[in-house]
Parts: sequence; C-alpha cells; structure tokens
Amino acid sequence: MSKRALSVSREENFPEWYQAVVRDGDMAETSPVRGCMIIKPWGWGVWERVQAELDQRIKDTGHENCYFPLFIPMSFIAKEAEHVEGFAKEMAVVTHHRLKNDGGRLVVDPESKLEEPLIVRPTSETIIGDAFQRWVKSYRDLPLLVNQWANVVRWEMRTRLFLRTAEFLWQEGHTAHADRDDAMAETLKMLEVYREFAENVLAMPVIAGEKPANERFPGADNTYSIEAMMQDGKALQAGTSHYLGTHFSRAQNIQYQSAEGKLEYCHTTSWGVSTRLIGGVIMTHGDDDGLRVPPRVAPRQIVIVPMLRDKPEDASLIDYCAGLEQGLKAAGIRTLVDLKPIKSAEKRWAWVRRGAPVIMEIGGRDAAAGNVTFMRRDHLRDGDKVVSKTMSRDEFVAGAAELLDDIQAILFAEAKARLDGNIITGITTFDGLEAYFGSGEADDEAGAFKGWAKVAWSRPEGAELEAIDERLKALKLTIRNAPLAQDPVDGPCLFTGASAKEFVLIARAY
Amino acid sequence: MSKRALSVSREENFPEWYQAVVRDGDMAETSPVRGCMIIKPWGWGVWERVQAELDQRIKDTGHENCYFPLFIPMSFIAKEAEHVEGFAKEMAVVTHHRLKNDGGRLVVDPESKLEEPLIVRPTSETIIGDAFQRWVKSYRDLPLLVNQWANVVRWEMRTRLFLRTAEFLWQEGHTAHADRDDAMAETLKMLEVYREFAENVLAMPVIAGEKPANERFPGADNTYSIEAMMQDGKALQAGTSHYLGTHFSRAQNIQYQSAEGKLEYCHTTSWGVSTRLIGGVIMTHGDDDGLRVPPRVAPRQIVIVPMLRDKPEDASLIDYCAGLEQGLKAAGIRTLVDLKPIKSAEKRWAWVRRGAPVIMEIGGRDAAAGNVTFMRRDHLRDGDKVVSKTMSRDEFVAGAAELLDDIQAILFAEAKARLDGNIITGITTFDGLEAYFGSGEADDEAGAFKGWAKVAWSRPEGAELEAIDERLKALKLTIRNAPLAQDPVDGPCLFTGASAKEFVLIARAY
Repeated sequence: MSKRALSVSREENFPEWYQAVVRDGDMAETSPVRGCMIIKPWGWGVWERVQAELDQRIKDTGHENCYFPLFIPMSFIAKEAEHVEGFAKEMAVVTHHRLKNDGGRLVVDPESKLEEPLIVRPTSETIIGDAFQRWVKSYRDLPLLVNQWANVVRWEMRTRLFLRTAEFLWQEGHTAHADRDDAMAETLKMLEVYREFAENVLAMPVIAGEKPANERFPGADNTYSIEAMMQDGKALQAGTSHYLGTHFSRAQNIQYQSAEGKLEYCHTTSWGVSTRLIGGVIMTHGDDDGLRVPPRVAPRQIVIVPMLRDKPEDASLIDYCAGLEQGLKAAGIRTLVDLKPIKSAEKRWAWVRRGAPVIMEIGGRDAAAGNVTFMRRDHLRDGDKVVSKTMSRDEFVAGAAELLDDIQAILFAEAKARLDGNIITGITTFDGLEAYFGSGEADDEAGAFKGWAKVAWSRPEGAELEAIDERLKALKLTIRNAPLAQDPVDGPCLFTGASAKEFVLIARAY
Repeated sequence: MSKRALSVSREENFPEWYQAVVRDGDMAETSPVRGCMIIKPWGWGVWERVQAELDQRIKDTGHENCYFPLFIPMSFIAKEAEHVEGFAKEMAVVTHHRLKNDGGRLVVDPESKLEEPLIVRPTSETIIGDAFQRWVKSYRDLPLLVNQWANVVRWEMRTRLFLRTAEFLWQEGHTAHADRDDAMAETLKMLEVYREFAENVLAMPVIAGEKPANERFPGADNTYSIEAMMQDGKALQAGTSHYLGTHFSRAQNIQYQSAEGKLEYCHTTSWGVSTRLIGGVIMTHGDDDGLRVPPRVAPRQIVIVPMLRDKPEDASLIDYCAGLEQGLKAAGIRTLVDLKPIKSAEKRWAWVRRGAPVIMEIGGRDAAAGNVTFMRRDHLRDGDKVVSKTMSRDEFVAGAAELLDDIQAILFAEAKARLDGNIITGITTFDGLEAYFGSGEADDEAGAFKGWAKVAWSRPEGAELEAIDERLKALKLTIRNAPLAQDPVDGPCLFTGASAKEFVLIARAY
C-alpha cells in the first residue's frame, strides 16, 4: 500500500484500523480498570461539542436538565419485570462502604456490608420513576420533561473503545404524559431530534425506524432507533427512543388526577445517545490518514502550525499567526495556534491523524507575502500527494466559515452516498440473504464490504420472531429497524411467506 | 414574625431555614439512596452556570478536559501512604458484577465476585497518576495540565443537601510539573482562579489562604483554600488547591527525562470545587423569602409572569410578553416567560423563593401603556411591603443588563460587608476564644451569630498542633486558613506562647 499516516488501512483490517485511529488520533485509551476507558482531550473535546449541540436541542424542545443518583437500590431494579430480565444481569454491585487496614493490608471491611446492595446505574428509569411518582400529582404537572447527562455502567465482557465500554457517558431523557398519543408524539419527536442532530452536526446520515419486538428496550412497548452505516458496511445503532406505555408507571405508581378528577397512570418515554456516537463519527468519516472530524463537532476547527526554526524571525512569525488566529476567532471559528516545542512536520501529522478540518502551516514566506498555506482534511491527498493551497490571509479569513460549511457538507455527502448506494433491495429468500452476506466468519468479514438488505416482512412476534432471530444470528445478522415513512410493501414476507406488512433493514452490526 | 415566603426564618433556625430554601426553591431533594441527592432543574441550572463560567477559566489558564474511569482498583488507593489514611475509609466498594434470579428473587450472584474490589472514586489522584506515568516521558511533555468534571462518592454518615452528600459533582484539576516552583505557581494560580470566580461570579467574598498542617489533603505538602462566611457566621471551605510535592509521582513513578538527560520525579498538584458551592450561594445570599441567585449564575435572569385571566385578551398579553422576551434575549439576557397554567400570584412567589434576580408581572394595563412592572429580588421589600416598579418597556429593556450588573454588585457588597465586619481581632488567649465563641452546644448555636477570630500563631506542627486541634474541636472550632498576603504579625502565639509567625482564622465551619 502507499504510505499513509496510520500503520494499517481500512481495507487491510477494519477493526485494527479503528483502534489505530482512536489511539493515534488522541481520542481515548484503555485504562487499568477492566472495560473502562480514558477519554483524552481531543476525544473529550468532540464529546463537549456533542453535548453542547444536543443539549441545546433538548432544551429547545422543552426539557429541563436534572441530576439523579449514581446508585439504584437493588429492589428498584426488580420492580419492572421485563426490565429485570433485560438489565438485571451484568452490572456493578456495591456491597460495602468501607475499607480497613488489616495488618498493613487494605481490605474490604466485612462490618461495612450494606443492608441492601446498590447498583451502579445501567440506566435510570427506576430511580427517576420513583421521583416522578412524587412529582406528578395532577394533569397540570404533565407533560413532565426531564433529561440528565450522566455516566452509566454495564458490565460488558467484550469491550471496544467508545463502541462498547463498561462505563460510558450519555444523556437520558425521561418524560411522563397524560396519554398514549402525547407520549408517542414525544418518542417520535426525540427520534427526529436525534436524526437531525446526527445528520446536520455529526454529518452522519441515518435511517430512523422502529426496532422489531425482539430488539425492544426491556419494558418498552415500542423502541425506535437511528441506524448509521459504517465504512465496513456494518450498522451502528446511534440513538434510541422508547415509548414505555404504562409499564413503569404501573410498577412505580406514577399516577395523576385528570381534569375530570380520575386517577390515571402516566404514559412514559425514555431516549438516549451516548459516547458511542464518537465511535460512529470515527467509522463514518475516518480515512487511512486518521480521523476526519466534521467541523461542527471539531474542538478546533482550524489549527495553525507556525514553521518555527528556533531563530529570531520566529517572533514575527508567531505574531503573524496570532493575528490570523484573532481574525478567525472574531469570525466565531474555534482556532488554535500550536506552539508546542516539537517539529512542525510532527505537529502537522498529529493534526492530520486527529482530523482537524483545516490545518495551516505558516512559514516565513507566507508571512512576508501576507499569505496562508493550508490543507483541507476532507480532501487531504490527490493520489498519494498531500494537497495544500496558498492564498492571501484576508481572503482566507473572509471565506473561512464558508470553507468549514463546505467541508461539513462534503463529509455528509460522502457518507450519504455510501448509505444510499448500499441498501440492497430485491432479496426475497433467506438463501438470498445468505448468498449476499456470506457466513460472517472472521476471515470473510475482515475485508469484504457488505451493505444492508431491505426486505419485506410480515412483522411476526413471539416464538416465530425468536426463530427468525436465531437463523439470522447464525449468519451474524440482525434486523436493524423498519424505516419510518417507507414506501408501501407488496408481496410475501421473506421469513414467513405471509403477506408482508413493511420493509425492514437487515445488517451486520456493532 | 412578619409574613415571609418561607415558613422559617434564618434567625429562628438557620439549619431549618437552609432546608426550606433548598426545598421551596426547587433546588434539590433527598433521594431513596442514602446520602445521594436529586438535583432539580433550578438547582441544576445554577450548576450549569457554575460549570460554564469556571470551565472557561480553567481552559483560559491552559488546561484540557479529559475523562477518567469512575472506578479505582483497590490496590491503587493503597499506593500513597497518607492518601490511604485519609481516603481509604468510607467509600463505595464494588465487589460483584452480576445479579441473578434466585427462585423469583433478585440476588447478588456470588459467582460474579471480582478478583480485586473496585472503589467508586472519592477523588482521582491515583487513577490519573497512573495515566500521567504513561503520558509523561520528557521535559517537553511538561507541564501536563488536565481537568475533569465528574461525580465522586464519599460515604458520609451525616449528610446535608449540597453541603455534604455521599455522591457529589465537582471538577478536579490534576497537573504535573518539572519542579517545585512551577507546581507551586500552578497551585496558587488555581486558588486565585477560584477566588476570582467565587467573588465575581457567585458574588461570594472569600479569604484565600493556606490550611494548617492538620487540615491538609492526604498526601499534600501544602493545601490552600478559599473560605466564605455564611449568614450564620460559619465558614464554608469553598475550594481547595494542593501542592502534592513528589508524593504521588514517587508512589506511581511519574518521571521525566530532563533537558540534561536525567530522570526526575514530577511535582504534581490537584485542585477542585464541587456542588457544595451551591450551598455556599444559598447561605450567602438567601433571605427569609427564599434564595437570591446572583445574576451571573441565575439560569433565568429575568422571569416574566403574564397575568392571564383565561379570557380572549390573554392572547395579546402573551404577545406583548413575547416581544419583551425577544428584546431581552437580544440583549443577551437569560429570559423566561412563565406560561404554566397556574395562578400568576403562585408563579410570582415560586420565582421569589427560587430567587430569580428580576421578576416581572405584566398585566393588561402594562401592555396597553407599553409599560412593565417588576420586582428586584435583591431588594424585594420595604419593611414588610413588597416593592415593585413600573416603567416603559423600552426603557427597561435598554437598562436591563445594567440592572442585572447592579443586582450582582449589591449582593456582593452585602456579603463583603458581612465578611469584613465580622472578623474579630484582638483575641490573644484561648480563654478569650472560649468567651467569644461559647461552647458551641446546640442551643447556643441555633440563633447567635459568631464571626471569625483572626489570631496570631507560631505555626506549630505534629503533636503540638494535634493538641491544639483537640482543644479547638472541644469548642467546635477549627483553624480555617492563614490568609495570603497578610500584614506582618507581632507578639506571641495564642496557643504556644512562642513568637508568632502569622495570623490564622478560627471559626465554626460546615
């Protein structure tokens, strides 16, 4: 292969390429605590942008932020039956509250055993439901619309940075409504907020739709998701929104007095996105030189690297760059002059791997001529050659915001073309699925790109659906969702032969 | 007493008054999880403002945000000897990672016992130190300046909302430096950031100084604090900054190669403020009608309550208020039109108790005349009478930013006068301390305001200091800090009789 900034290409080995981007792009690293990651400044900066953009949208749709306890009493988890089945498995359990010095060795003090174990929250429906039950009295208190930004823990056996970690960060929205219609409208409204956010901010095109019954959130009547296509063709569930019916309100007694004076159960919803989105950004936009961060979530949108030479002229070059920085910041652009005491070529490549949208290298000649030289990270190379462009500083500053918009649009368009071009239609039999996807065994998977199949089905549930799920799993496939607002379907279900009710998307997934 | 919006006054019972402000001001409530609080939207909104303002200052001083794991392996806690003594006590200990269904009952699965218990972080020196040890190689990597916003848990026996809770939220800065001078400069720089932030943003005057040896952070060479005076005279430690010497770098092998090629230990620091600050804001600015939030941390600076009457005229009144809101938002003011379907008098008093800086009640007559009527929360009453003012809408909008600045300044000035006027000098004997402060028993404490005593001391350490600490504790007193940049001291130490080296502040404290 030709020389790129990473040691492994997407085509050679996609999972290893992913790890290389995360590591060499200073996004995150593993920690000495099993399954928990350390998010490094550049990765955290992306998360801060995600938080800022999404938080504004959550507030604009009428939600208020709160904060609920990290711990959940074990008995709370047990309250909602399906929730127990789904969540009461791999979780961090706090059983003691003290350590003691035992002959010079630190040990858990057996005397400090808790009467009731506490669970580190895997999600907060039960502890928030308990508050809702106190807060909701009358129909006038509804809808109750809250959100929290928090860390949660699910004890995962096989972890992968950002995509699946024991501790992860997310927002979880929780709402209570007077009736089904209002709660369902909320569920779909937040799904649409996620879609708009993923596409317009992360430049990550998604398909919004409803999950099949077997993929529902434990305790939900309906679960909706947005699904994004990664560069290896796999699907990434990037956000979910659940209509919970009255399951949690019945389990926790969340009732209100209606205008007519009757006691009614609330209909509740929950919805969330997590640090997993960052994994999605990486696998949507990264290339063989590293990450490409969409400008709207780039902690630094333009990075200026002065080509310092440890000579007296450096001072005026730094001045020139500071002036440039000032002009860009005045235009509302997140700008950094990188003055770290290392070689400028090293700095340039570090920013390429991190994926800063625009990287400028300014030398004495640029400064003397009132020029700037820059690279666009969305289009770094022509063939193997790195492309840079020189123009007048004033012209660059005047057009910088537009340049970033252009990069954002191009990243989205690239990803959108990939998604649109790789949804296969026309498969009507299970054998057809197998022929297209192959067995999904490791060798097979490493290189070959497989898109998604859009197939007709009759929306089976129960044992019939479970059997289908098993057959798909044998091929490492899952049903991702039934896209919203889809075309009418005609003909038989691929699985059951019965009359089809809708199309669903089938794919390998993270 | 005269009628106020709270059921209990500061003078009647300060601790109960505090609870009433927290509850009736919609700041927070206790949760079913021992010692853990639920932060409600208004309280969370204040914390969001604290985060935004302080985060900018932390970034402006060159720090980058990261995120480190929630859990710390027990063996890490054991690494730094004094740290063990100080922290390895009341902590949440995770011992298992699974629940199971045992004949219909949810229990901790004994098979899921962890090889090594995990501690829910009480502070992160050890886990961050472990990363520093990997990240720092050469003097070129220094200083290493990171910060994280996180939740931490310390198993407290007696908790009080915001002031002392098992789980709390904070930022913790952690830095590594080449030598003592650089690390000490950082320690004092961040102390100054805290002072400036407390005074200019929270309108909470503080005294910055060094803690005595017995109050140092476990593992620190020097601990500095900012101390604020609450309305009952007690001190609140509102932020700390620690110079950790080479204790943690030796325990965790954080070494760098110097320019001369020698391996050297880093000098590290850490510093933090927490949700406790919100308790400080309440006890600094609250009055008998509830909280008064300084405009710079008020989630809503101006709240508009339209006096709706369930009549067709309501529509034009709402329009008028929306126009007003638009004008204020355009001036950069966080504004809310409260359209909740409850009586406007109820809404007015709810905002009084929450302490929105300016509360407007707009009726049809105001709208017809192009006027506004408003109350300033910093000066709500004249005697018992609530004061409101009417002026033209345009005039109000034009002067609104200045009005908020004025409220901010007045809240600070009130608190500053309290602090400055209540530091007693001239006490030179222990008997004098006892005579001034009394025994500190419950009855005594409830009403009587006691300020702080500024006394001369010889800076004893070790057993001598411990004995002094014991004597002070018997009176429920502690040494708060030795103020920075203090006047020269003369004469004997109050405690030892030896020649005094500096003044220290002695007070009851939270």
